[in-house]
Amino acid sequence: MIYLDYAATTPASKDALKAFQKLSTDIYGNSSSLHDAGGKAESMLRHCRQKLAELISGEPEGIYFTSGGTESNFLAIHSILNGLPSDKRHFLMTEMEHQSIHILKRHLSMAGFEVSTMKPNACGIITAEILERHLRPDTGLVSIQHANSETGVIQPLAEISSFLHERGVLLHSDAVQTFAKIPVNAARLGVDALSVSSHKVYGPKGTGAVYIRPGVNWRPVYPGTLHEKGFRSGTVNVPGVGAFVTAAESTIGHMAAAYEKHQMLRSHFLQGLKERRLPISLAVSDAADSQVLPHILGCFFHCFEGQYVMLECNRRGICISTGSACSAGYHEPSNTMNALGIPREQALQFIRISFGYDTTKNHIDKLLDVLTDMNHEKGDQRIDRRIKTDGS
Amino acid sequence: MIYLDYAATTPASKDALKAFQKLSTDIYGNSSSLHDAGGKAESMLRHCRQKLAELISGEPEGIYFTSGGTESNFLAIHSILNGLPSDKRHFLMTEMEHQSIHILKRHLSMAGFEVSTMKPNACGIITAEILERHLRPDTGLVSIQHANSETGVIQPLAEISSFLHERGVLLHSDAVQTFAKIPVNAARLGVDALSVSSHKVYGPKGTGAVYIRPGVNWRPVYPGTLHEKGFRSGTVNVPGVGAFVTAAESTIGHMAAAYEKHQMLRSHFLQGLKERRLPISLAVSDAADSQVLPHILGCFFHCFEGQYVMLECNRRGICISTGSACSAGYHEPSNTMNALGIPREQALQFIRISFGYDTTKNHIDKLLDVLTDMNHEKGDQRIDRRIKTDGS
Repeated sequence: MIYLDYAATTPASKDALKAFQKLSTDIYGNSSSLHDAGGKAESMLRHCRQKLAELISGEPEGIYFTSGGTESNFLAIHSILNGLPSDKRHFLMTEMEHQSIHILKRHLSMAGFEVSTMKPNACGIITAEILERHLRPDTGLVSIQHANSETGVIQPLAEISSFLHERGVLLHSDAVQTFAKIPVNAARLGVDALSVSSHKVYGPKGTGAVYIRPGVNWRPVYPGTLHEKGFRSGTVNVPGVGAFVTAAESTIGHMAAAYEKHQMLRSHFLQGLKERRLPISLAVSDAADSQVLPHILGCFFHCFEGQYVMLECNRRGICISTGSACSAGYHEPSNTMNALGIPREQALQFIRISFGYDTTKNHIDKLLDVLTDMNHEKGDQRIDRRIKTDGS
Repeated sequence: MIYLDYAATTPASKDALKAFQKLSTDIYGNSSSLHDAGGKAESMLRHCRQKLAELISGEPEGIYFTSGGTESNFLAIHSILNGLPSDKRHFLMTEMEHQSIHILKRHLSMAGFEVSTMKPNACGIITAEILERHLRPDTGLVSIQHANSETGVIQPLAEISSFLHERGVLLHSDAVQTFAKIPVNAARLGVDALSVSSHKVYGPKGTGAVYIRPGVNWRPVYPGTLHEKGFRSGTVNVPGVGAFVTAAESTIGHMAAAYEKHQMLRSHFLQGLKERRLPISLAVSDAADSQVLPHILGCFFHCFEGQYVMLECNRRGICISTGSACSAGYHEPSNTMNALGIPREQALQFIRISFGYDTTKNHIDKLLDVLTDMNHEKGDQRIDRRIKTDGS
């Protein structure tokens, strides 16, 4: 099987698993316990906090461990909103955010916050003009992803944060897709908070973290919470945290080389599309005025529904994704496609290819072969027939 | 180090770690992805759901995996409350519940529910009379722990559930301390929902589950949630779930033998206290009209603050707990002590000893030796001095 869906999840690295194993055996105490078994766990946790802070150029006291990216987003946003003054109860987010942030909209409204969303420009970027249009006097917090999981487009967070700070507004960023892929420097980006996840950086599933710049006021989502300085309730998964930080450190150690390799693979794929004259185009063109993560290629395979392409690739041993939040037999254009103003029919043609540590040129060639075969077999058949015949 | 704090957390078993390792390597796909890597993960998840359902005599479609006991309690209670009719917005819980349920009180009130609490009788039991006194016409859900984490007292859930069902009220039970220690048979206990945790049964930290009897109406805490049939948001930790279920199965396989061993160790400890004439008594006497988990001994060491005893045992290489929600240098009587009506000074003398798979008679003897030494050294010193001299 050729796995080209690293943006969805990565396998845990050997080092991460070794760390998990060792910590689960040697440092199994509850980090809240005051005896030595607990103390060892607490001390390991402190070490991990320090290490992760270094990796994002933040302060250790701003690191809070969670059960993953989704919980990180939820707790970061809700806790910061809780800490804002009563005249700052408006929360602004982009329409391209991950589903975990979209599902907060109703929840936060019920908790008395006002939530509104903004679309990016055609290149997928949030500009100062767009922010200007959407900010309100009562806006307290804005959430803007560091990079989009479907298009790979990277937001100019440093510019955005200084624009927001001049207006007294805080910035949270979902850095799940960028962490350990490109430099995520909290200080340089000027973000007030960010979310990261373990299983996107070759760490185990079930762990993640939030960084909140010390000085930013926040209040617990669940008043009375004891763990993680009141940020998150529940026994801390110290072995998971240790394995996550181990993986993050190693992935960041190889980050520059991986970035370069992914750029090469990206060019190779795009070149291949041209040479084979495949009717496949990027959702946001690389020529557009935007930076992208080289390992994420969000494309339209014109004439084919994305779900059909994904299933057909799968049948031939290649895992790619439709990028959209889909479940068997049903899919809708994703939030990102809607935000980019892509018409429904085209949005459903979306596929995402994402590279990882074991991806090779040969994998890309095999993928190109499959896509070429599909294109040849296409003939006159309509999209609808294809889906009904072969889709699940 | 002699570890006698198994009620706080257990080390992950070799089998569980092996399963975690294997699943993290072989079945790393995102269980929501429709390609084969995702399909393998989804199929493993289905297998685990089936297996866990068997272990609690429930239906697989009622199992929802979470990040642990705390999240299980929160999501189970809130989701069921969300599903109740508008004239059933009263939630009743015991004052002995785990901190994770206590911290929901304010949160649920803010969400528009009415929350009230009830105390048990002197033996730590919730009786029909107590329930009768606290039920209201608008009570929709009651949460009663299966057993208390500090006293080990087991509630008569089967009687309680039929009493509640006759009155059209649902029952959730926090079974984190009983699962895989005594039979937890959802059908026989008649519970409508229950919570379990992995790291209490020799599984990895960071995983747990909720069982909600199919037929019980519930609605997502975060509308729009896609994973776990809308119950919980976020990529499912399939390796963690697999390791959890592996551990649970094995622990339940040895449950009868462990129960017998723990009963023997309990008798040995209580006999030792008598023989050495130590001023240590159980918080709820074994002679009282209540069933207890044999591996949990909640005691008062009269004349000593629990935190001092814990630290002194620790200094001599034995990990026990104060049972209370404490943090370094600060502790308050626990919810359970307050619920039992124990006066403050005595409540602060509380210590908890809890046995696990590697506990031996020899460990108990060593603990008895330390406690005996402490008793001899006691002399005329006052509690306060002890704490200030030796406590952290």
